[in-house]
Amino acid sequence: MANYEELAALVLEAIKEGGYLNKDLGSIPVGISNRHIHLSQADLETLFGAGYQLTKTKDLSQPMQYACKETLIIAGPKGAIEKVRILGPARSESQVEILQADCFKLGITAPVRLSGDLQGTPGVTLIGPKGSILLTKGLVIAQRHIHMSLEDAKNFEVNDGDRVTIQIDGLRGGTYSNVVIRATNTSALEFHIDTEEANAMALTSSSKITILK
Amino acid sequence: MANYEELAALVLEAIKEGGYLNKDLGSIPVGISNRHIHLSQADLETLFGAGYQLTKTKDLSQPMQYACKETLIIAGPKGAIEKVRILGPARSESQVEILQADCFKLGITAPVRLSGDLQGTPGVTLIGPKGSILLTKGLVIAQRHIHMSLEDAKNFEVNDGDRVTIQIDGLRGGTYSNVVIRATNTSALEFHIDTEEANAMALTSSSKITILK
Repeated sequence: MANYEELAALVLEAIKEGGYLNKDLGSIPVGISNRHIHLSQADLETLFGAGYQLTKTKDLSQPMQYACKETLIIAGPKGAIEKVRILGPARSESQVEILQADCFKLGITAPVRLSGDLQGTPGVTLIGPKGSILLTKGLVIAQRHIHMSLEDAKNFEVNDGDRVTIQIDGLRGGTYSNVVIRATNTSALEFHIDTEEANAMALTSSSKITILK
Repeated sequence: MANYEELAALVLEAIKEGGYLNKDLGSIPVGISNRHIHLSQADLETLFGAGYQLTKTKDLSQPMQYACKETLIIAGPKGAIEKVRILGPARSESQVEILQADCFKLGITAPVRLSGDLQGTPGVTLIGPKGSILLTKGLVIAQRHIHMSLEDAKNFEVNDGDRVTIQIDGLRGGTYSNVVIRATNTSALEFHIDTEEANAMALTSSSKITILK
């Protein structure tokens, strides 16, 4: 009997050392966005000059996406916000993602939308060093979503476009509903929220969350 | 048979008109706080001058509580925040309730605490028109809580000090856990959160929430 117990203890130790008892299994890293801007190449050139190219300062977690040195002022009828970061590369349409609190500062009510879903959204004024633009649409509050690869989606048993509820532990914990799965071949696993959503649940860039089954 | 149907319709109409089919039954109004300051009378006099009395501008929903004309600058090692509203009346101890985002601006990490639970909390510098103070404690992020009367507590089948989970509907909905019940003889029913918590769930001062059973 003693031999079996010894054997069991050795097997358990081997399993632990091998990482087979991974507590993080199924947990998802958190990416927190402050307000930011995506620009079309045409709008970039209006704001910064003909032929202008963005200056990368930092790669983001999603492949090919990066933060730029360049910032803009965004302005509405009630106020302006300075130093709003541009993210690269240029896109087919300009899009400005703000916080709910920014709506009060700007005096513009932006809807909660997925990236790229811009029909019927309000515009905003962008002010750059070489020109300014009044966008006719593109001002949104980002809807919470999870980027993942198609393989991740298979592992989590979800599909692109699904809405899931995610669980956050801790004193400021809770759940967020209507979190949209965005699964593509080239996505890195990450739960995307803005700074207000992160702060409300005491999430940081080192937090992990889980999908509630 | 037709007579019974007519009678049933009339009874239903009477019930509706009498408000007996109240959709808001069990729902709780939402009170949203921005960063604010409670001062002791001694600290008030250091900041505004001997014998100074606060100037009420607006009654708050909790009995005897009011917003004041007076504001202060609060400051930490990394930065300052201007025009932080003082709430009256004076309390036994000064307390500064900030947002998670303010911690980054000030360069001070504040814990999530219930009002009055100040042991071990960090201090902050308060700057007023007649003087400034370095508080040795009192800087907190407010823990979400629900004020209610003892009768409300009976109706909701909860007790003072209980922690409940509350449910928020809508596209930006979800749940908040560890919401503390604060039941006293003199409290008005209200779910208290800060602006980041409100914005993360798209709550406004006209929203209603429910306790999850």
